[in-house]
Amino acid sequence: MKMDINCDLGEGFGHWKVGLDELVMPLITSANIACGFHAGDPIIMRKTVKLALDHKVGIGAHPGFPDLQGFGRRAMTMPAEDVRDYVLYQISALKGFVEAEGGHLQHVKAHGALYNIASKDPVLARALVAAIQELDDRLIVLCPAQSEMARAAMAADQPWRAEVFADRAYMADGSLAPRSLEGAVHKDQAKAVLQALELAKGMAIPTLDGKQITLKASSICVHGDTEGALDLVRSIRATFQQDGIDIEPMGTR
Amino acid sequence: MKMDINCDLGEGFGHWKVGLDELVMPLITSANIACGFHAGDPIIMRKTVKLALDHKVGIGAHPGFPDLQGFGRRAMTMPAEDVRDYVLYQISALKGFVEAEGGHLQHVKAHGALYNIASKDPVLARALVAAIQELDDRLIVLCPAQSEMARAAMAADQPWRAEVFADRAYMADGSLAPRSLEGAVHKDQAKAVLQALELAKGMAIPTLDGKQITLKASSICVHGDTEGALDLVRSIRATFQQDGIDIEPMGTR
Amino acid sequence: MKMDINCDLGEGFGHWKVGLDELVMPLITSANIACGFHAGDPIIMRKTVKLALDHKVGIGAHPGFPDLQGFGRRAMTMPAEDVRDYVLYQISALKGFVEAEGGHLQHVKAHGALYNIASKDPVLARALVAAIQELDDRLIVLCPAQSEMARAAMAADQPWRAEVFADRAYMADGSLAPRSLEGAVHKDQAKAVLQALELAKGMAIPTLDGKQITLKASSICVHGDTEGALDLVRSIRATFQQDGIDIEPMGTR
Amino acid sequence: MKMDINCDLGEGFGHWKVGLDELVMPLITSANIACGFHAGDPIIMRKTVKLALDHKVGIGAHPGFPDLQGFGRRAMTMPAEDVRDYVLYQISALKGFVEAEGGHLQHVKAHGALYNIASKDPVLARALVAAIQELDDRLIVLCPAQSEMARAAMAADQPWRAEVFADRAYMADGSLAPRSLEGAVHKDQAKAVLQALELAKGMAIPTLDGKQITLKASSICVHGDTEGALDLVRSIRATFQQDGIDIEPMGTR
Repeated sequence: MKMDINCDLGEGFGHWKVGLDELVMPLITSANIACGFHAGDPIIMRKTVKLALDHKVGIGAHPGFPDLQGFGRRAMTMPAEDVRDYVLYQISALKGFVEAEGGHLQHVKAHGALYNIASKDPVLARALVAAIQELDDRLIVLCPAQSEMARAAMAADQPWRAEVFADRAYMADGSLAPRSLEGAVHKDQAKAVLQALELAKGMAIPTLDGKQITLKASSICVHGDTEGALDLVRSIRATFQQDGIDIEPMGTR
Repeated sequence: MKMDINCDLGEGFGHWKVGLDELVMPLITSANIACGFHAGDPIIMRKTVKLALDHKVGIGAHPGFPDLQGFGRRAMTMPAEDVRDYVLYQISALKGFVEAEGGHLQHVKAHGALYNIASKDPVLARALVAAIQELDDRLIVLCPAQSEMARAAMAADQPWRAEVFADRAYMADGSLAPRSLEGAVHKDQAKAVLQALELAKGMAIPTLDGKQITLKASSICVHGDTEGALDLVRSIRATFQQDGIDIEPMGTR
Repeated sequence: MKMDINCDLGEGFGHWKVGLDELVMPLITSANIACGFHAGDPIIMRKTVKLALDHKVGIGAHPGFPDLQGFGRRAMTMPAEDVRDYVLYQISALKGFVEAEGGHLQHVKAHGALYNIASKDPVLARALVAAIQELDDRLIVLCPAQSEMARAAMAADQPWRAEVFADRAYMADGSLAPRSLEGAVHKDQAKAVLQALELAKGMAIPTLDGKQITLKASSICVHGDTEGALDLVRSIRATFQQDGIDIEPMGTR
Repeated sequence: MKMDINCDLGEGFGHWKVGLDELVMPLITSANIACGFHAGDPIIMRKTVKLALDHKVGIGAHPGFPDLQGFGRRAMTMPAEDVRDYVLYQISALKGFVEAEGGHLQHVKAHGALYNIASKDPVLARALVAAIQELDDRLIVLCPAQSEMARAAMAADQPWRAEVFADRAYMADGSLAPRSLEGAVHKDQAKAVLQALELAKGMAIPTLDGKQITLKASSICVHGDTEGALDLVRSIRATFQQDGIDIEPMGTR
């Protein structure tokens, strides 16, 4: 058994910092690096790519809507062809840094509102996958198993991997429980670690609406912006190692 | 004898247009395409790349300072390493579109204030060439023959080509005559066409300060923003064809 | 009888131009001036304000979503309080230029997607009116008569005026006919001029769905981006003058 | 005797934070609030204005170059008229928030590269003062006593106040000691507090080049971005109170 651990990184901008990139990088196996549209800039991109390569972490592009002020979290209505161009621009730019530093691009994970919308909208999902495929047909699409992104990747014969969350409760249909519901976020660290372990082992987990669900999962998504978040990652790692689950990047090129 | 004709293109932004791209593209052999920092956006970039490929025009990236409001024409003081990252970002992004559309990137020509500063500042020139080289060591640097960019390209063993202007007077030291001097711009079309022809043939041209100079030149830079500019390009083409000068892209990959 | 004629102006950005501002300004009585978020910049704002004052044209702020790349035409989901702050910022900035040049701000008209959304969404409409009111409780809200903006202005006791379009067909419920329907835009200039005249006189106009409607109207919205658009404005002016309708700014401070 | 204490605030952007605004606001008497060009956005501006009013802190606009990515610290070459328009835009926008929240704008302090350049360049200094004066001829220009900004304010009969730094060494000509020199920054808190006290009392202070200088000073500039910086402010306050120096806003409208 093996599992990847992914985290969003390089999400500062110019003078502004966010996240404990130096501390979380040694704990993960795949990094989603911002590409300058919702966060990140060329200087931060190169620095973060170097840091990932130093730690043998798989590198992914993390494209978002062109909205620095909203951190890519605001939905923006636009034609799917525009999304395709915005995504190709961002992932190409990151690829340049990765290859200049001697690495290769492993995957692409959409950010924020783009991730949420492309999970549900098949037209946008196809535009996203098309941009990824025209850059490199071996690039992995990282997305929820139950999503239009996964469906679009399958239809286009583009590699994809499913990601799950340790600290979020799921519903019986495989969707994340809405944050407005009590119990949607596992604040208890032990509960989050247990869910990560069960998901890694392919076991069923309890859902917030009282059922059981088995979720396909190649990668666990974690956060690196607080000390508490780092603690959770350390606990998940320790538990995985104890249970014989190999922690390694999703890509097997 | 042969000569390339290059022009800046794709310099709109979103809703805003500038330049007669559709009309000038059939007349030139190399296009310098804006990359989103001083002008251009992902949608315009793809459209312009396609147009260039349709006309078998060699494609170059045209990176600039991050200053849409100033159209990249304002000098910005920043460390050379930042310039390197800004340039790598932009040319990688454009490369993505070129390769997605089935072409290859031929050259890089800096824009506006970045072009002017990197012509004279060896540190910035080396940063620019370093970014180009780490993306692709066969990419051509397009620049004035008498420039720090040319020197930096030679020192780094990166291919480069010299460009000249048909409608601008030169000084005896090979620099462009300052626009503040009378006669700095050849308003008479016949004069500009003649200068283009003499430069293409490797003949000496008269300088504004009363000498003669022979300038190395692989490419003539023209403009495509007015009907008058298009007329000049048409005249240069006709004269070249009459005199047996082949008009073809600078790249010979 | 009297009628105001309003037009969007100052919608360039930096190097980029759009619209025939110098030509349309003498033909109108109220100008909606972009404030830097969807278009316009400080230099263009001052220049456009001066041009309006030279022609004794009433000056309005034309705030939009923060989206230069999309020209403010893309819907962006955000809290109403954020819209309020975005609007107050923009209209305050324009007010600074107007007063520095010796004028006063007459009105506010939302732009693009903000105009469309605030027409139908009462929460956003109230946020828009709140921002206007906290800057100046005598500022006129310019909007469709049948809109949540008009309702919000009435509820807040803020002055407002209704605008109509000469070249767009209406539906029986007072809404604009969707552009997807045949006949939604009056391409025949005579038809547009006639509609303008009937609206100015308070007469009923035929709707695209075969009824008649009487629309409240203090101002006719026109365009100034093409020669054809200017011709239509000239025809409307000539017809109004012939029929004894005074053409004057909506504000009567 | 009395002294103002000023600090730069509201310098986050969107999702990104910088500075301990809530902690430093109770310790100061004047706040320089970013206006959206180098940092700050409409939402942060309103929040920071409210916080300042809650603590009866005098409010100043803190305009900078249009360069979020460079935090306004990069010199940008542009015509002085453009600087004037950029400054008027920013200070008008902030004025809107201040008056909407029931306060009044007290002063203007330029930021970063704009502050540095306008200190030495009389043309830019005049443009800055002109923008301030056309918005409100009672607005205070906050600047070094030995600066072109002070000279331009005097020449234009615009109110101005001199600011000094507690933790920076001065040269005999009244300029700040360059950071490259040893001893340019007082790392010893006691030394910084002593300098603040001597400056407040109008006493001569030792210069880094071994002389004595007496500096005009109405305000001490402090930082609020680290716990250490807050400690220094607390020490300065305590010392001032002990020595009978009243700590109050510079404005006495």
